[in-house]
Amino acid sequence: MANIIDERQSALRNLMEENGIDIYVVPTSDDHASEYVGDHFKTRKYITGFTGSAGTAVITKTESGLWTDGRYFVQAGKQLADNQTILQKMGEEGVPTVDEYLTDQVKALASVGKKPVIGFDGSCMTATDGYKYQEMVAKLGGHLVTDLDLIGQLWEDRPALPNSKPWILTSEFSGKDTLDKLADVREKMTEKKAKYHLVADLCNVAWFLNLRGNDITNVPVFMSYLLISQKDVTLFMGEEGKASDILTSEVMDYLSERNISVKPYDSIYDVLSEIDGDILLDEDFANYKICNSVSKTVKIINEAEPEELMRATKNDTEIANTIQAHINDGVAMTKFIFYIKKKMGQISEDVMEAVAKEEVATGKHIGFPEDEPLTEISAAECIDGLRSEISDYLDLSFGTISAYGPNAAMAHYSATPENYSVVDPRGFLLVDSGGHYKTGTTDITRTIAVGPVTDEEREMYTRTLQSHLRLEYAKFLEGTCGVQLDMLAREPFWEVGKDFKHGTGHGVGHILNVHEGPNGFRWRINGMNSIQELIPGMITSDEPGYYEADRYGIRIENEILCQQAEKNEYGQFMNFKPLTMVPIDLDPVDFDMLSNQEIAWINDYHRQVREAIAPHLTGAALEWLEEVTTEVTID
Amino acid sequence: MANIIDERQSALRNLMEENGIDIYVVPTSDDHASEYVGDHFKTRKYITGFTGSAGTAVITKTESGLWTDGRYFVQAGKQLADNQTILQKMGEEGVPTVDEYLTDQVKALASVGKKPVIGFDGSCMTATDGYKYQEMVAKLGGHLVTDLDLIGQLWEDRPALPNSKPWILTSEFSGKDTLDKLADVREKMTEKKAKYHLVADLCNVAWFLNLRGNDITNVPVFMSYLLISQKDVTLFMGEEGKASDILTSEVMDYLSERNISVKPYDSIYDVLSEIDGDILLDEDFANYKICNSVSKTVKIINEAEPEELMRATKNDTEIANTIQAHINDGVAMTKFIFYIKKKMGQISEDVMEAVAKEEVATGKHIGFPEDEPLTEISAAECIDGLRSEISDYLDLSFGTISAYGPNAAMAHYSATPENYSVVDPRGFLLVDSGGHYKTGTTDITRTIAVGPVTDEEREMYTRTLQSHLRLEYAKFLEGTCGVQLDMLAREPFWEVGKDFKHGTGHGVGHILNVHEGPNGFRWRINGMNSIQELIPGMITSDEPGYYEADRYGIRIENEILCQQAEKNEYGQFMNFKPLTMVPIDLDPVDFDMLSNQEIAWINDYHRQVREAIAPHLTGAALEWLEEVTTEVTID
Repeated sequence: MANIIDERQSALRNLMEENGIDIYVVPTSDDHASEYVGDHFKTRKYITGFTGSAGTAVITKTESGLWTDGRYFVQAGKQLADNQTILQKMGEEGVPTVDEYLTDQVKALASVGKKPVIGFDGSCMTATDGYKYQEMVAKLGGHLVTDLDLIGQLWEDRPALPNSKPWILTSEFSGKDTLDKLADVREKMTEKKAKYHLVADLCNVAWFLNLRGNDITNVPVFMSYLLISQKDVTLFMGEEGKASDILTSEVMDYLSERNISVKPYDSIYDVLSEIDGDILLDEDFANYKICNSVSKTVKIINEAEPEELMRATKNDTEIANTIQAHINDGVAMTKFIFYIKKKMGQISEDVMEAVAKEEVATGKHIGFPEDEPLTEISAAECIDGLRSEISDYLDLSFGTISAYGPNAAMAHYSATPENYSVVDPRGFLLVDSGGHYKTGTTDITRTIAVGPVTDEEREMYTRTLQSHLRLEYAKFLEGTCGVQLDMLAREPFWEVGKDFKHGTGHGVGHILNVHEGPNGFRWRINGMNSIQELIPGMITSDEPGYYEADRYGIRIENEILCQQAEKNEYGQFMNFKPLTMVPIDLDPVDFDMLSNQEIAWINDYHRQVREAIAPHLTGAALEWLEEVTTEVTID
Repeated sequence: MANIIDERQSALRNLMEENGIDIYVVPTSDDHASEYVGDHFKTRKYITGFTGSAGTAVITKTESGLWTDGRYFVQAGKQLADNQTILQKMGEEGVPTVDEYLTDQVKALASVGKKPVIGFDGSCMTATDGYKYQEMVAKLGGHLVTDLDLIGQLWEDRPALPNSKPWILTSEFSGKDTLDKLADVREKMTEKKAKYHLVADLCNVAWFLNLRGNDITNVPVFMSYLLISQKDVTLFMGEEGKASDILTSEVMDYLSERNISVKPYDSIYDVLSEIDGDILLDEDFANYKICNSVSKTVKIINEAEPEELMRATKNDTEIANTIQAHINDGVAMTKFIFYIKKKMGQISEDVMEAVAKEEVATGKHIGFPEDEPLTEISAAECIDGLRSEISDYLDLSFGTISAYGPNAAMAHYSATPENYSVVDPRGFLLVDSGGHYKTGTTDITRTIAVGPVTDEEREMYTRTLQSHLRLEYAKFLEGTCGVQLDMLAREPFWEVGKDFKHGTGHGVGHILNVHEGPNGFRWRINGMNSIQELIPGMITSDEPGYYEADRYGIRIENEILCQQAEKNEYGQFMNFKPLTMVPIDLDPVDFDMLSNQEIAWINDYHRQVREAIAPHLTGAALEWLEEVTTEVTID
């Protein structure tokens, strides 16, 4: 009863009452619509108790609800169990969307003669959503209250705003100077007839400036805005008079060499209120308060920030470095899988002999200790440790997912010291992990057979592999889009009436958010925004999977680089180069299901892995690699 | 020099001069943007000499050009060779589009101080294009002249306007009464907030009224408009006071029973000038003059005519009848292929014996005469004749394409008595043909090996078959679009750096234009208009092909019906039912290239063909059918 969350919501309702607010909306967002947010911005978690990365809370005078997606139904169910917040399972039949719910609520208020008032913190709501709510209440004579951060008023021990010190990604790592990027951006501004351009997406700011920070866990960005005109560039960052607290003299010099001036972060609103020409910005990243600061006489050109597509199309330096990052990452992952297979008794006698010989010769035990069971946690610690030893390692690119058996059926499962599984010698261990290095960012999933698998598991693992390979080895004409190629990955599942309920792939940021757009592989088309052709230089994940609730989960993920293939009378063909260099477990494959072409693809991929990784391994690990990447022949 | 076309263009330039017109544009169109037009409307042919179905002529004071697409480069090249019109090959590198050319021309005029004037017949230009040209000249201070049909002024022996008498497609053939369709349309009008709705697409008028006519060769429609309000429905058709010339008393009664009034065709402009509420129309079908007739105070809601999607989604009666139409059509096609194979000595000894026995027993020769060579023309006459004998036959759905060897590489080749090939006993004869029946419309292509084929021909025939089957047997989730499924059909070509330069399929009209939208299989995405999900009841052709210029052409076409498959936790799955029931020639197949699944698909399709067609055949033809549809087994 005296639940802390219910108490907080009760206090919030008092504040709502004081301020004449009927409904208060708390999205998961910082001022920049970041996918992941710093602790300071976890207001939705504060008011609901739900800790997942995605969700929206809506509090009315009598109800409170949390909307989240399928990844989090189980977790949110547990976390909301003790308080009165209703879990709204997005996408389930009969569950209203946030917008539908709000529409019903405001109509109900209007029907009893009230002019509905929706409140939210205008700096943590995208302009797109803010305008939508504005229209919703305006129709009924109501209005919005957006200048109050009510959660902030309640939250006593709120974490401070993040304020990491950015560092410079020098030209041998960035490949293109900010001034060259500026020329490209200004060309786009001219094309769009924009006198000004606001960069609100933190990944775009970091990419443009060739700076990286540490304001968000696993996403090396820093809280800032960039305002670009045809004449000057201003970085909005830090507190008034305290720029030197977060900008080192090296970074200050770097910026001033490029004629980039620095103003306090909070002054963006005043500056925007005084601009005198049309401004290009993306209302899906710029917040409601930002867009309302712009004078009504100025036209907002609401389009994707041009940096997004530029950023997604990696330059030659980024590509060459990323290839190297994947080799280093691949060596760590290869050792890791070898250790798992060894621990679970899944290596051949030949390799076992090599292990024994090496252990005697070096006097060191290889891999996991023998006297402790393998657990999801110890597996994650092992791969995280191997990555951290890589010379230019910066951080994990996301929290390692190490999920055994039924746990792998939960797409965003996270083992904790309080709640984890021991790995038994049967079925699959799924490990989805990656690192940020100065050379680039990785994201890889392997599903490892830790013992015998069932016939069904074997069939579905093989279909997942077919799906993965058909996309990785696709050849296609210039102009083909991710929503189209996704068919190739769906076919092995759809043909038997199965599916996986996530995209097949996402763009991969370069030492930025590991998830980025506009490239991706999905099949649902939601307007032209979901349609992006593949362009050489784009790096996208290829990660089909299959999940049987409470039983098992499978996913196989490589990152693949779009590149040009031959050009002929039919046009410019394109294909993919796999960047991830880690053997795929063939133990659970049903080779009878594979075509000769699919087997040729496996052999081609494993040849590339062997050539890339073998030079960096010795002893038993090398012997194991050579064995598991040996050419498969079918009679 | 004294070429008739050049003389006509010279006379046109005099008229342009008299009327102050700098550039005159002549598209291929009637007042309804029909794909095919009646002879009266063939103004572009009159002024250029080019007889193809698609193209645009632009005449300036010093130049004349004809824009047409890849289907017609060869034909147009020959037909323009003797006059001064320049062939502009659309889509070739370095060739300007019509719009680019016009832009250059008007800018050149403006650069010498002239206010450019573009002229065209406003009733034969879509509003979309007309507005584009209007903007083009207005920017430079120029204007349009659209109220003059200059070609009409020149054309002395111009064919009369078409005036066929419509007939009623009774309910056992239409499946849904006009009044029920009207309720659906009015619901859409309410949704779109339209007080009025103009139906300009002739196929939509015919579908809505359950009437068919004969104003365009192979397209059973009639020149008319329909104006629908929430209160009444008016059909605009025929000349003032002469409705009875084209509307039989039966049709007049039929219309008046449904409260549909009739006004003269030409009065549509006056009526539109007086409407007092917003009107839903499609500016890609409504002509420029139509849209300019609407008062400026009335808002034009420019969207696809709602009838288009309703028409494309066939009702149960239409589907059941179409299945029957395909069986009748399939019997004719099966006999035809048998006759071709027999004539070219491509039948087994067993079947030859059955032929001999039947010929002795009946005293009748089977198939093509022995003493004349098989030609493209005699082949076409044979299949056209077989179709015309079908009980409810109405017309061909398009001119039969019968193309041997290199001729088949031209997508729209048409053999003529002056120019045709004899069929030699090697390579392929491609026959693309179809009929309109009271039960429905067919469109089928078979490529028949008339003798040995080369290894390359065998490989590409097999790839075409793979492409065809992968689409026909696809299973997919509800919401999947044609631009996505097209990937499955492209893959067998793209993987070897080949392609075919046409869509894989088009919607098929029901006793209307054999080509219709919005469904289709194409891969190029041109805005959201090119994106249409597959809906149960849609009938689409599945016709991949492969063409080697001057050597050979291959195409395999079935019509396939979208239908629901199982619904489960992943959603509603869909698949296709093949409607076309005609054996596919397996003689030129390389079975080593096929997967077990592809062979299973061939066997499944041929089982369906055998079960549908065998009951309608006897004697040698039946024996042949059974032999060529025998289950294929691979060891």
